[in-house]
Amino acid sequence: MKLAVIGVGLIGGSFALALKQAKAVSHVTGVGRDPANLQLALERGAIDVIAPDPAGAARGADLVLIATPVGQYPKIFASLTDAKALITDAGSTKRDVVAAARKALGKKISQFVPAHPIAGAERSGVAAASAELFRGKRVVVTPLGENTKDAVKLVDEAWSTCGARISRMDPDEHDAVLAAVSHLPHLLAFALVHEVARRENSAQLFAFAAGGFRDFTRIASSHPEMWRDICIANRERLLHELKSYASELGSVQKLLEAGDGAALEKLFAGAREARNKWIHSS
Amino acid sequence: MKLAVIGVGLIGGSFALALKQAKAVSHVTGVGRDPANLQLALERGAIDVIAPDPAGAARGADLVLIATPVGQYPKIFASLTDAKALITDAGSTKRDVVAAARKALGKKISQFVPAHPIAGAERSGVAAASAELFRGKRVVVTPLGENTKDAVKLVDEAWSTCGARISRMDPDEHDAVLAAVSHLPHLLAFALVHEVARRENSAQLFAFAAGGFRDFTRIASSHPEMWRDICIANRERLLHELKSYASELGSVQKLLEAGDGAALEKLFAGAREARNKWIHSS
Repeated sequence: MKLAVIGVGLIGGSFALALKQAKAVSHVTGVGRDPANLQLALERGAIDVIAPDPAGAARGADLVLIATPVGQYPKIFASLTDAKALITDAGSTKRDVVAAARKALGKKISQFVPAHPIAGAERSGVAAASAELFRGKRVVVTPLGENTKDAVKLVDEAWSTCGARISRMDPDEHDAVLAAVSHLPHLLAFALVHEVARRENSAQLFAFAAGGFRDFTRIASSHPEMWRDICIANRERLLHELKSYASELGSVQKLLEAGDGAALEKLFAGAREARNKWIHSS
Repeated sequence: MKLAVIGVGLIGGSFALALKQAKAVSHVTGVGRDPANLQLALERGAIDVIAPDPAGAARGADLVLIATPVGQYPKIFASLTDAKALITDAGSTKRDVVAAARKALGKKISQFVPAHPIAGAERSGVAAASAELFRGKRVVVTPLGENTKDAVKLVDEAWSTCGARISRMDPDEHDAVLAAVSHLPHLLAFALVHEVARRENSAQLFAFAAGGFRDFTRIASSHPEMWRDICIANRERLLHELKSYASELGSVQKLLEAGDGAALEKLFAGAREARNKWIHSS
């Protein structure tokens, strides 16, 4: 199988490395905006050749993975209208991605099987890629009514070969779930660091920040452009989550103002119990 | 030197283990509310004997460490009015602790040198204690005007022996700094897990939560009673921080509503840069 990867970063690079390691693909063409990153992708063996653009990369490929920030998808889909390959993606949002694909691909939409590997890191670029990135992680595949069974099966198998566990959702459900457990926490972490960093005494504040702050804000070291695109693409759902959370903070504020230690302790104990249950079961 | 530890948990147990390992203390008396935990403290060699109450533990000790949740301090100070030992503590708040000490100890306040080791974990109890917990970590010592130089020196040296780096602040400054970089993030993490856990589809939400959510919420597995006491003790400062953060989220909400990708990316990039600078310098 010949693979084309559009956006050879952490995700695209890891997908290529994993499929190559499993000998599931014989040849990988890479496309990207950063020549130094593409050069490193060649050196790391993630890709075999560099193509000048998505259309060139897709030519002769059996499978195309789009793994750029989702804001670039409309342009990429528009350049894939002649592609004969099966197309999948790794975008963190699915409603906007499917809408962009439908608009650009028309009847060729049957060739596009959307997916989202729930694996990432705050590091980015092919330098951070690893054949092991997806091992044991979930990949949500959100097939379209137009997809053939064989097309979905091929995409499922590619991700399974990377070691991932496949889940099914529809794009709406996917975006709602991810807004709550991924997109919102990223926004909250970025906001906290931003709020601390702009203060006059930020050097002192950072000096006394410890492990709790470090872990809470790890995702605030994530890729700004990628997260800009996710926030914009999923902003309706994200705004809904942000408002729910602001309302939750409003309740917490009332408990603090009332000095209601018993209610705070109950809230904390419930959260701890829920989290520990999740950690032990996952 | 003979040590008494009131509250032989993660912090108290680690302090005792570190000083014993360094042969800086010859004998440790422990006091606590949980007999099973005290038994484990004996078995782990953190303490040599169990005393029935703080007054009994302090009798014959050279140094007393109070390492319970701060809500218990007023009662503990009240039972130490006859103590001849030097007293220090490990509370995460300092204004309330100093006020409680002044009220209970009167002229004996000179015997109390407040401190706060900025080291912790979401695990609690002596089972999680380690002689290495404080190595390379900061301990804020907030000496009082009444303390002698020798008293402060002895407390500094005890923490230095544990491998910690000593910093000085006054209690007000300490509580303001910690509210921003520790107390607020804990509250935010508890609130997020609480908000997710109470939903109808919480099982699905947790199933698709990944590494970002796990690290963001690690501190939501912290000790509920300890954090109840911290929030109540420092609620003035914490409310101030909570309101600043809510206002920050309000700004982020406006950017989202306006679909202002450029401003969001700028905010994310600034946060990432500030965090990475901190991580690389710490």
